[in-house]
Amino acid sequence: MQTLHVELGDRRYPIFIGSQLNIADLLQPYVLGKQVMIVTNETVAPLYLDVYENALNKLDKKTAHCILRDGEKFKNIENLNLIFDALLSAGFNRDCTVLALGGGVIGDMAGFAAASFQRGVNFVQVPTTLLSQVDSSVGGKTGINHPLGKNMIGAFKQPSVVFADMSQLASLPPRELSAGLAEIIKYALLGDVEFLSWLEQNIHQLTAGDEKALAEAVYRSCAHKARIVANDEHEKGERALLNLGHTFGHAIESYLGYGTWLHGEAVAVGMVMAADLSHLMGWISSEDLARVKQIIQNANLPIACPTIPLNEFLAYMSHDKKVLDGKIRLILMKQLGQAVITDDFDVDAMKQAILNNQNKGQ
Amino acid sequence: MQTLHVELGDRRYPIFIGSQLNIADLLQPYVLGKQVMIVTNETVAPLYLDVYENALNKLDKKTAHCILRDGEKFKNIENLNLIFDALLSAGFNRDCTVLALGGGVIGDMAGFAAASFQRGVNFVQVPTTLLSQVDSSVGGKTGINHPLGKNMIGAFKQPSVVFADMSQLASLPPRELSAGLAEIIKYALLGDVEFLSWLEQNIHQLTAGDEKALAEAVYRSCAHKARIVANDEHEKGERALLNLGHTFGHAIESYLGYGTWLHGEAVAVGMVMAADLSHLMGWISSEDLARVKQIIQNANLPIACPTIPLNEFLAYMSHDKKVLDGKIRLILMKQLGQAVITDDFDVDAMKQAILNNQNKGQ
Repeated sequence: MQTLHVELGDRRYPIFIGSQLNIADLLQPYVLGKQVMIVTNETVAPLYLDVYENALNKLDKKTAHCILRDGEKFKNIENLNLIFDALLSAGFNRDCTVLALGGGVIGDMAGFAAASFQRGVNFVQVPTTLLSQVDSSVGGKTGINHPLGKNMIGAFKQPSVVFADMSQLASLPPRELSAGLAEIIKYALLGDVEFLSWLEQNIHQLTAGDEKALAEAVYRSCAHKARIVANDEHEKGERALLNLGHTFGHAIESYLGYGTWLHGEAVAVGMVMAADLSHLMGWISSEDLARVKQIIQNANLPIACPTIPLNEFLAYMSHDKKVLDGKIRLILMKQLGQAVITDDFDVDAMKQAILNNQNKGQ
Repeated sequence: MQTLHVELGDRRYPIFIGSQLNIADLLQPYVLGKQVMIVTNETVAPLYLDVYENALNKLDKKTAHCILRDGEKFKNIENLNLIFDALLSAGFNRDCTVLALGGGVIGDMAGFAAASFQRGVNFVQVPTTLLSQVDSSVGGKTGINHPLGKNMIGAFKQPSVVFADMSQLASLPPRELSAGLAEIIKYALLGDVEFLSWLEQNIHQLTAGDEKALAEAVYRSCAHKARIVANDEHEKGERALLNLGHTFGHAIESYLGYGTWLHGEAVAVGMVMAADLSHLMGWISSEDLARVKQIIQNANLPIACPTIPLNEFLAYMSHDKKVLDGKIRLILMKQLGQAVITDDFDVDAMKQAILNNQNKGQ
């Protein structure tokens, strides 16, 4: 087991990364109150709810659970309210803990509930997907969607501890494993070319679900994210780098309708577009661009999206939150493994990068 | 005009207290983005919405408004969502400002919306009742009710500026003015016997709506609260003193049904009960108790509640958030003007204090 500490002053917390983690022993120092609400979904509950309830009961905690429906479309105010209903029906007070057991949607909703219930209670995160292990377990972003926009309502809420248990990834569909790898590749592309080389050497173990390789990739990704978040907790600057591929990706997700493509799949193509634009601007070489496409393809991810009319693609991009006063800012690569946030790019080149990476046949 | 600074490190903010404040000039440094959402209610909108919209338009801001129904029973998740709907329908982004124009309910809801929209946007508070000027303008507590409990869901959100304009109190019903005075008296009783003497000398000017006397009372009350909140922003200790009279008061409000009595009226009787218990414990004299009752009565507030069966009264008290592991903690007076938070009191004396201050005739 490896332990990574996210350094956020008095909200410093550890991420335990390993296989078959001893939950009860590791949890004990982080659950001080007597009441624990486990928030999970219909898919995860049959697999792991028992394990956590038993571990907590061994610690003499009173547990209750709230099982939500599985999927991004349930990340809304009605389902958030079900968590509040469960907390209050169980008679839980401000000393309780909310434990998120599931992927990113569960982490976002349970985290926002923990931030808001009684104006803030203890929060423990058990991400059960690769994506949520490397993404939502660091950074404290929580929230829900609104019919007029994704993640429009939420809070910054840091957990007191995160458990990233690789053995739980065995139950993950291969497509979701690959979606998680997209975010892992992102960390390499935005700030660590040496990690890119490591990924190139280990990509087959990773796609095969090798727990040791996965643990290393999760550790390195979380360490990257933790360093960036520690410098910029509330996304005033550097943290925006984490959105590499996301403005293009959001446009793809929005056009196709959320749920058609996985977030990681859309981000994969978004990173190809960002790399292509970086190449068109003369910042990275054609060999660099080829490496980006190759690692994404080797992770069993798409490198092109279906044909989307350019004007619609651009309209969806401009709905992205990274638009300040109507001007699109993008995360691009000044060189391979070194991303910048910039609005200083050629708009025609941007359009070209979008068109270059669509499946013309579809 | 007097200016009080609430010292909360990098979230330090001023409260401007006076009459006929020059809103546009004073607002300018605190509204940096271009978009301002004014959240108000049906009662306040016809009186003051124009004034604020005009002031903001003079500053070249884009304004929109969200007019909620008036009353505590609308402080719920459905009405909170109306604010999010308004923000997103207007196309507002993370650089916008939410301005609360109204009493405590509006401040609580608009503040929680500001805390949650895009995970936090700028918040300006214009409390238009005496109660909200001395209570919700300091402390950053925001939130909504849930069918199973009051203020169960919310956030700590500090405004960037507060405007307490005494000229707006002229439109306030006398009963609400008195309810505000209850909280002002609370500050005197919990920590400042000299302020109690000042109130005793000025109570008639205050109930008559004298703006100069009201401004002084608001300034002193906010200064007290600001000092306590600065020491204990997230209510780990000292801040609980601000709940003097509230555990008894909540029981009265809950039994009568929220909205029957004003919060300040219930707190007034709650303070009498707390003073009576403090007297029964031998901590304050009968003369002190008489002074407490007299100042409350002179503020045109009740000093006794309707008859409530003791077992029901106690059940409602134990639902209060200040119950830790089933044990009731109360704010009592060790001497007049010096409150403590304690569970070290005689339970029979507590029951006696409750029974002593009910209208036997009702």
